[in-house]
Order: sequence, then structure tokens, then C-alpha cells
Amino acid sequence: MTKGALDGVRVLDLSRVLAAPFTAMMLADMGAEVIKVENPKGGDDSRRYPPFVNGESSYYMNLNRNKKGITLNLKYPEAKEVFRELVKKADIVVENYRPGTMEKLGLGYEELAKVNPGIIYGCISGFGHYGPYSQRAGYDIIGQAMGGLMSTTGWPGGEPTRTGTAMADVLAGLSLVGGLLAALRSRDKTGKGQKVDVALVDSVVASLEIINQIYLVEGRIPERIGNRYESVYPYDSFRTSDGSIVIGGGNDKLWAIICEIMGTPQYITDERYDTNFKRIQSHTEVKEIVEAWTMTKTIDEAVDILLEAGVPAAPINTIDRVVKDPHIAGAREMFVEVEHPIAGKMKLTGSHLKFSDTKTSIKNPAPLLGQHNEKIFTELLNLTPEQIKALKEKGAI
Amino acid sequence: MTKGALDGVRVLDLSRVLAAPFTAMMLADMGAEVIKVENPKGGDDSRRYPPFVNGESSYYMNLNRNKKGITLNLKYPEAKEVFRELVKKADIVVENYRPGTMEKLGLGYEELAKVNPGIIYGCISGFGHYGPYSQRAGYDIIGQAMGGLMSTTGWPGGEPTRTGTAMADVLAGLSLVGGLLAALRSRDKTGKGQKVDVALVDSVVASLEIINQIYLVEGRIPERIGNRYESVYPYDSFRTSDGSIVIGGGNDKLWAIICEIMGTPQYITDERYDTNFKRIQSHTEVKEIVEAWTMTKTIDEAVDILLEAGVPAAPINTIDRVVKDPHIAGAREMFVEVEHPIAGKMKLTGSHLKFSDTKTSIKNPAPLLGQHNEKIFTELLNLTPEQIKALKEKGAI
Repeated sequence: MTKGALDGVRVLDLSRVLAAPFTAMMLADMGAEVIKVENPKGGDDSRRYPPFVNGESSYYMNLNRNKKGITLNLKYPEAKEVFRELVKKADIVVENYRPGTMEKLGLGYEELAKVNPGIIYGCISGFGHYGPYSQRAGYDIIGQAMGGLMSTTGWPGGEPTRTGTAMADVLAGLSLVGGLLAALRSRDKTGKGQKVDVALVDSVVASLEIINQIYLVEGRIPERIGNRYESVYPYDSFRTSDGSIVIGGGNDKLWAIICEIMGTPQYITDERYDTNFKRIQSHTEVKEIVEAWTMTKTIDEAVDILLEAGVPAAPINTIDRVVKDPHIAGAREMFVEVEHPIAGKMKLTGSHLKFSDTKTSIKNPAPLLGQHNEKIFTELLNLTPEQIKALKEKGAI
Repeated sequence: MTKGALDGVRVLDLSRVLAAPFTAMMLADMGAEVIKVENPKGGDDSRRYPPFVNGESSYYMNLNRNKKGITLNLKYPEAKEVFRELVKKADIVVENYRPGTMEKLGLGYEELAKVNPGIIYGCISGFGHYGPYSQRAGYDIIGQAMGGLMSTTGWPGGEPTRTGTAMADVLAGLSLVGGLLAALRSRDKTGKGQKVDVALVDSVVASLEIINQIYLVEGRIPERIGNRYESVYPYDSFRTSDGSIVIGGGNDKLWAIICEIMGTPQYITDERYDTNFKRIQSHTEVKEIVEAWTMTKTIDEAVDILLEAGVPAAPINTIDRVVKDPHIAGAREMFVEVEHPIAGKMKLTGSHLKFSDTKTSIKNPAPLLGQHNEKIFTELLNLTPEQIKALKEKGAI
């Protein structure tokens, strides 16, 4: 079996629930040794989030596969000491406490850098570690709302709408992977670690690229425009006889093909629709023209005809279709079976990073609470069984 | 001025429009030397996407700041040769052509690895470089539809809805940053480069974490549930007297505070609402209870009272509010002014990765088409003015 790209990188994952656990999960999938550090009193909150399999949270099991699990109650001086010893032997620390929490524990970046100047400290919070709102709690919905995403998602005349996943968390989690690995590259060159601070709100703002530009350049406030896009048309959803499909007709060439397919070649050179810019201006009419054709077909018929002619088109998949899709689930292996000691055989969402050489893998299920205490404390820190017993009796682990 | 984390890393950016240009933009913001390679006949399509400033596309200018720009028509043998020479001196190549395009040009990963075995080759496509759908064109809307995101975004009884930004493109772009830097770490250790293949559809599937688990574990197809979430309640949008706000009441402690604020402490121990699980089951009633209170307040009043009491809450910002926000635009510097030779002074969306040491920066505006031809061809490849002139006359640059 090939080693992962991050073979030899050690990560201490103090994080909970979604955003930063997602970061550490990606590092683990790429071969880093990730040690998840949980409070001995129940651990990560998400261990109690549905859905459950034999009482085990699949929310937790998905985001923490491939990680080792230890417990530390960081309020105890003994646990802090153990943590500092681990930091000496680690490359990266990841956390998503409210800003200031780690400092109050005496374990903020500045303190950890004294112990290991090369340590890279990655944190995710709602608003980031500095700025006037930094002390506000920030969950996913706060990020989606404050960052502007909800105001631009949904339908004209309808309500602001969140995306169907915890997108602010996911954007921040993905972003921190890049930030940490850039900092690792820098440390490999200079020996010096640093802190990488990612906010949910900032991550959402960064995702809005052209949407922000519309306001910055035109002074126009971007509105909810349903499934069409600001910059291209016909690039939208269209009704068929048995549901909706999407068509990505991004340029004049594709518009010409679509017109031929529909049997209405006169629209190719029609002065109302002959450039992308004009089609954006006349999007309501163009949608009517295209739907007059798609409504005569089923989803499958319309998608097949369009793809055959080279026009990007797709059904709007529900999750059951995604999970059974021969390309997504089959060739791309986006759902991976793993055996968990309590939950049994189950499927998790696989890594979407496809390396030609150092392939990602799901080698191990998520840890039970404190499952690797003995192993890590013995093998990595050379603690004796008596020392481990004493820590346990105190409640420090 | 501090150097960026990726100082010394050289990237050849063959990409167009959004997803992979976003990747290369992030690398450039972090200090990599990114050389954007464009077709001399008009360059990147997005140079013609609105909105425009003095005729220059701010779509393009935002995604290509900090990059140097050269032109190569890769259909010409002379241009291929120049490109191979550049590959010898680069660490990373990024492209988002349809799979097979680079191979047809004789410039696929296998060929480039012969020239430079350490080269890291990152690509973004709709469906990835292998699998039965790999030859289908995949734009953002195709990724959002096929990956399952649209089916879970929107309102009960309403239509499947895309997110208000090109989210599939952004997710893939962010993901490739992590993949490339992991591959760079691996190459720094082993000397061997590799290909990192990211698909829009896979990236969307990966973003759906718990949503996929609901189907995989319960066999239930996740539906559109508006602004609430599957795992927690009250964590939703709520109407006030002058618009909607969001509240992130993720646990029992926050529910208790919300009940106290509303003057209805009896709900704290009410058997219908006293656990998160029960509140999810009774979300319609809980929403009515909370809105009975929020409707008596304005947006600002409700948010202030909730934040004061420690309950995560936020207004649903439109983009004008985001751009003017003292935290987001002020302290977090999410909008950065840059001077472009034609567009003049303008604001771009800044980097959301906040490094304590190797800070990101926007040092240079996006390049004009071929702006750095002479500089790169002379300084990096030692071409003579005569050779450059000959390439130009041929149309190869």
C-alpha cells in the first residue's frame, strides 16, 4: 500500500463538530497521523448528533475516520503538561474553540510556540481571532448569513436561503487545509511555525467572488436570482415533463447547438439573443424558448439529447441517485466502506482528492472515546502504566 | 515586507474562468510565483465576462491578481517547446481543460513528468479525469446538480435551488490548493511529483457530509428543509418586524437562555422541547414560539438582545452590508484596493487565510494579455529578442 502524501506529518486535533474536524479528516485521509484530543467527559459534542448506528453517531464517525483518539481534560495541569509534551512531537495543532479559550488554558499559540517553535497552529472560528466581533460565537448559519451567501441564494421574491449543507463550515475546513500545508512548506524551509486563523464569515465572503465584484464595481446589490447566473445564459434549470434539469450553455457556440436541437435555428442569429450579454438581458424569454422544448421531453430524454450534441446538461440528483451513481460511487469511489467495532460495516463519504501516486485511503474507523490513550501515552510519551493510571484516577485523561 | 508562505514555489497556470484560476489565485496570494499562460487569441474567456471597469473584466481581474501573464498558443510546436522549458523550471502546473485536451496536445501529465519528474500537475474538471462521465463537460451548475447539493437547497414544496455563488467551482478550487500542497510536501521528501485530479461533482459530494450519511445510514432521502438543519434546533432563520435574522441555538444551554430572553422559561423543562432531539421533531412549533418573540423586535433589536445574552445570532447581510462591515471589511481586511493600469483603483476580495507570520497580500493587479512575455521569456528561459520576435510573428505567443 502506498503511503499518503502527508506521511510523517503529525497533527493534534482538538476540534469539535464540523469545520476543523473536516480539516483534520482531510489531513488524515492524505496520510497524516491525526491524534484527536477529546474531553474525557463525553468527548466531541457530535458524538451525540444523529443519525446513529447501534448508538454511535455517523456524523462523528464520518468526520473522524482515520484519526486516533485520546482524552485529555485540559483544565488539569497534568493534562496540560501531557499536551505540551505532545506538541513537542507534533507538526500541526488544529482547534475550533471560541477565540481566547486556548489562551485562558495557557495553551494559546504563543505558549505552544515556546515549547515547539516549529508548531503550526490552525484555528477556525466564526469571526476569526481578531476584530470587533471575534468574541461572538459563530456557527455555520451565522457564517452563511453574515457573509452574504444567504442573501444571494434563493428565488426572486422569496426568502434568503441557506445551502443544503453546512457550507460555511465546509468552506472554512477546506480552506484551513491549504493554509496549514502552506505554513508547513514555509516551516520546512525556515524552521519557523505560525498561526493560521480562518473565520467562517471570511470563508463565505471569499466564496462569493463575482458576486462581491458586482457590488464593488457596479454598486448594484446582488439579488436572489434562482438558478440562473449573473454572467452567462442559458445556464439555468429548466422544467421537463417529469422534473427539472440543468443546462450549462455558457457561450454562443453552445447556444447555436441548443437552437439546432430545438428545431429553432432562427434564434441563433436573432438579434435579441445572438450574444451572451443579450441572452442575460433577455433571460426570461430565453428560458421560455428553451422550456418550450424541454417540456416535450422527460429528464432522461432531454439530458441524453443535449449530452449527445455536446451541450453540458444534467439531472438534478437526489442523494439516493448520487450514492448509486456508477460514475460518482463507482469509478470515483466517493463512498467507502469501513468496519467500525460497534456500528459494524458502514459507508462513509470518501476523499475527493484523487492523487495519482500517494492515494488517499480510509484505513481505520473513527476512534472510540480514549481508544488510543494507552498506545499514544506509552509509545509517544513513554509514560509508565502507573503514570497513566494516576492521570486516569484524577480525571485528567 | 514578509515573504509569503509559498515564496520560491513556481506555478504555471493554464486555467480559465473560475475553479482552477481560484486555486492559482490562492497560491499567488500566499506568495507563489504564478505565471498565467493564455492563448494569444483573446486569452481567458473570463476576460469577456461582466462586470467591466473601463472595458476590463473585474471577474478576470479578481481571480488573476498577483499573477504574471504570458501568451502561448499550445497548438504550435514552438509554443509547446517553450512550455516544456517552463515546466523544467516550475513546481506546479494547474489546468482545467476538458480531460484529454492536454494529452492531445502532447502535454499531459505523463509527458510533462518526462521533462520534470518532480512536477505536480493539478487539474479540475466537471467529472474528473477517469470514469464513465469523464468526457462530459462540467460547469458549476452541473456540479451543483449532479452532486446532490441543489436537491437539498431550498424550501419544502419549492424547487431545487443552486447556491448564490459558483459553489462547485469554489469547492473544487479550494480543494485543489490542499491537494497540490500535500503533493508538494510529498515531492519535497521523495523528489517525485504526481497528478492531483479534482472533480466539481466529487467536491460537491464531499461537501455534503452529514447529508450523505442520512441516506447511507437511515435510507431516508434528504429533502429541502429551508433554513433549518437536520441535526439541531432552533438553528434557523426567524422573522422580525423588519426582516429575517438567524439564530444558532445548538444545545440545551442556549435553548434555556433563549427561553429566558423570550420571557417563557416554562419551555426550558417542557417535555416537548427539553432536548435537542425533541426540538428537531417539533421544529414547526418551536419556530412559532421563537417567532412570536422575534416578530416583536426589529432585526437590530433582536440580534443585539440575543448576542448580549450569549446566543449566536446574526442579521442576514446583503452584499452592500458585507462590504461596509467594520469587522469583515475593516479588521479582517476582506476587501483590498489595488491599482490596475487600465481599470484604475478598484477593490478585490482579499484572501481569507490569515497567517500570523507569512501574511497573504495583493501586490499586483491581474496581468494584461501577454504583459510579462518579454520578462519571463528573457529572464527565465534566456530567449533572445530575435527568438521572441520570431515566436510572435508565427502567432505562437
